[in-house]
Amino acid sequence: MKQSVLFFLFIATAFSAFSQAKDEAAIKQIFDEALSKGKSYEMLYDLCTNIGPRLSGSPGAAAAVEWSRNVMEEFDFDSVWLQPVMVPHWIRGQKETGRIISRKQGTLSVNVCALGGTIGTGPSGIAAGVVEVKSFEELKALGTTVKGKIVFFNRPMDPTKINTFTAYSGAVEQRANGASEAAKYGAVAALVRSMGSNLEDYPHTGSMRYAPNVVKIPALAISTRHAEVLSQLLKEEKDVQFFLQNHSVTLEDAPSFNVIGEIRGSEYPDEIIVVGGHLDSWDLGQGAHDDGAGCVQSIEVLRLFKQMGYKPKRTIRAVMFMNEENGLRGGLKYAELAAANKEKHIAAIESDRGGFVPRGFTVPTDATAKAKVRSWKSLLEPYGLSDFTSEGGGADIGPLATQGVALLGFLPDSQRYFNYHHTAEDTIDKVDKRELELGAAAMAAMVYLIDQYGLK
Amino acid sequence: MKQSVLFFLFIATAFSAFSQAKDEAAIKQIFDEALSKGKSYEMLYDLCTNIGPRLSGSPGAAAAVEWSRNVMEEFDFDSVWLQPVMVPHWIRGQKETGRIISRKQGTLSVNVCALGGTIGTGPSGIAAGVVEVKSFEELKALGTTVKGKIVFFNRPMDPTKINTFTAYSGAVEQRANGASEAAKYGAVAALVRSMGSNLEDYPHTGSMRYAPNVVKIPALAISTRHAEVLSQLLKEEKDVQFFLQNHSVTLEDAPSFNVIGEIRGSEYPDEIIVVGGHLDSWDLGQGAHDDGAGCVQSIEVLRLFKQMGYKPKRTIRAVMFMNEENGLRGGLKYAELAAANKEKHIAAIESDRGGFVPRGFTVPTDATAKAKVRSWKSLLEPYGLSDFTSEGGGADIGPLATQGVALLGFLPDSQRYFNYHHTAEDTIDKVDKRELELGAAAMAAMVYLIDQYGLK
Repeated sequence: MKQSVLFFLFIATAFSAFSQAKDEAAIKQIFDEALSKGKSYEMLYDLCTNIGPRLSGSPGAAAAVEWSRNVMEEFDFDSVWLQPVMVPHWIRGQKETGRIISRKQGTLSVNVCALGGTIGTGPSGIAAGVVEVKSFEELKALGTTVKGKIVFFNRPMDPTKINTFTAYSGAVEQRANGASEAAKYGAVAALVRSMGSNLEDYPHTGSMRYAPNVVKIPALAISTRHAEVLSQLLKEEKDVQFFLQNHSVTLEDAPSFNVIGEIRGSEYPDEIIVVGGHLDSWDLGQGAHDDGAGCVQSIEVLRLFKQMGYKPKRTIRAVMFMNEENGLRGGLKYAELAAANKEKHIAAIESDRGGFVPRGFTVPTDATAKAKVRSWKSLLEPYGLSDFTSEGGGADIGPLATQGVALLGFLPDSQRYFNYHHTAEDTIDKVDKRELELGAAAMAAMVYLIDQYGLK
Repeated sequence: MKQSVLFFLFIATAFSAFSQAKDEAAIKQIFDEALSKGKSYEMLYDLCTNIGPRLSGSPGAAAAVEWSRNVMEEFDFDSVWLQPVMVPHWIRGQKETGRIISRKQGTLSVNVCALGGTIGTGPSGIAAGVVEVKSFEELKALGTTVKGKIVFFNRPMDPTKINTFTAYSGAVEQRANGASEAAKYGAVAALVRSMGSNLEDYPHTGSMRYAPNVVKIPALAISTRHAEVLSQLLKEEKDVQFFLQNHSVTLEDAPSFNVIGEIRGSEYPDEIIVVGGHLDSWDLGQGAHDDGAGCVQSIEVLRLFKQMGYKPKRTIRAVMFMNEENGLRGGLKYAELAAANKEKHIAAIESDRGGFVPRGFTVPTDATAKAKVRSWKSLLEPYGLSDFTSEGGGADIGPLATQGVALLGFLPDSQRYFNYHHTAEDTIDKVDKRELELGAAAMAAMVYLIDQYGLK
């Protein structure tokens, strides 16, 4: 008895040492390949410079669908297909105008942009007095005194939050709901301080929504620097006027697609691991960090496996979701079809936090899956992946949660993300090749481990 | 007896919980202050744009000395003083010329720069055939067949090394010693592939040295992109010629200074904690990451303490070392005077790896000090500081090692450092404000903990 226990322990230890060494070698191979012959940057360069902005419903989005399909077909994945989905079709229209009209200083042009989903001001624009608030509570206290005015939501992202996404979450309600909150009290427009970490000249767009049964008023963002200028002026001159004009319009929903590439599993082909990003972007920049990076990294995971000659046990899918920015229709459609087709997804990993240097992953909420992911930490720490503290996944994969799919999010460093997010500055020159390729390798390493060991 | 043990444990636990909470609060205050009202970026902007390059012995270096003294005096540190030191005085001379002369392709201009310490080619330059090697072993095997030729050292930094400093260490001997190795076999010049992580157009300078009793030949760096071009051409055409010209000269040693600012300790004023960077930079860029960042972060540590009203128990010194790049004279002088004046340094922390997002610290080699630093990990991890794996400090503080001083190095993320290092691109626009200020806060947090608890 005692001997057989010892023998078992010996075998178990030997096996564990063997698989540890095997996993270390596989992960090293992934990183070596990505860092010496990776294609992520080349793909992203192509997507950004030859296609560029790709807002849902736009010609750019349609071109990006074809581009993704072609790229994955050229890499000779087992299958590549399109998944039709209807998407919202909002158009910014010609460039917006914003002007401060000051009794003392005359007229100052400021940088503004329409928020995604807003109506236009009409051709003559809107000129009105400005009331600055930092919160919805403050707005409520002012009540109908804002009637006929432009409400200026000027609460900054909290710079003391170490994770900039936390700071974003603490401020973004102003962009999402500011217009309807202001309209309740009779305001004529909402002007929102850009969701940016830094003081700069570029306004940040992003989605807003109108509450039901509230009058729709235009909603625009103002650059953080000009928000400071306006706020300072309002301290000196209560009756500052603001002129704004935008020409945005929402058209009928338009047809579009999720784009999917797949390597079929050799042992458990019915068990699917998704790795994805979103293909649509805002219209101001090239969608380099948001989320061209996540798309090319997802494709790169499958390409790396093929390149290495790694035959996954489970089916690995790269999914380019359409319409994360202003509707999430692609993510919803993907989950709907997964359920309808009775597909068994065991895990989904999203990269939608930029192509910055890897820090870790958010982990699944299920206790077993979470513990399993965290047990791999020592394999991943040599690559700078040490943060496995937060739970959750990403917007596009979120709708899979009700099907019991383990959701993970790739976590790159967050410090520079909101310098560029949703601006004309989200361009390829803001992406570092090594940082991007380390991210692709990090995702491939995580997919490799899930493929090898599952999450049960 | 039993009761007194329990009582002791109760007190110890309560004290430990109390000091944990106190330390958490102090560290949070440091980060909050740095991220909301930090001055690091403002200082660095000023140093980079109003002074710029500051190679040892240059007018820029002299101006930087005055600048540092003024800045620290304006912050009203307890004492600010200069420490005289003689430094090497090498001058690049007018812009270098590099040309590939190809039978098939004609003449191609390429980007080269003289390496620090090299002699000049003379006014007529040098034209010769090129022999490419990847290692000193390969050169040795070629022996005197390189006589009369230019030896082209073209071993790249290994892209598969996760820490780019490891890749740098694996390649930099070509820059440091290539000229003398080549001269042993009769070569007329050394052309060295730039020490850069990426393929780009800017050549990287950096120090080289001549071995004793070997003929001195000129040593220049070529941009990584042009190194690839030259290497490709050499595969097709054995007799490619290369023309190079530089006008560098080494003058007599020049007088300069370390610049020191101090806050006097309230309990143990004789125990000194140094936090430092080097004030000199190469002459091609603004020395933003290397090492303006380390200088302003060091000053910021003391400023943050004053701003918070924190009275350190021990004496805290910010030291701007002169001449790290091509002589280390400042670091040597500082250690020499510390010994002569019988100063008791308990720790020194250097920031000389760029102003990028913090990752951790290298830890002292002494076992007790190392264990103590690592025991603080849980206090620092919430700020992204999780890497305490490597030992060592930094070049400038290195000479303090023989005095038993615990040496630590601030570890920012390394991925982008060698894109800019020693090039015309090491400029303020490559520095992210939040990343820089997080680094200053990280250093202040470490100094705070050492000040509170010592390292014994």
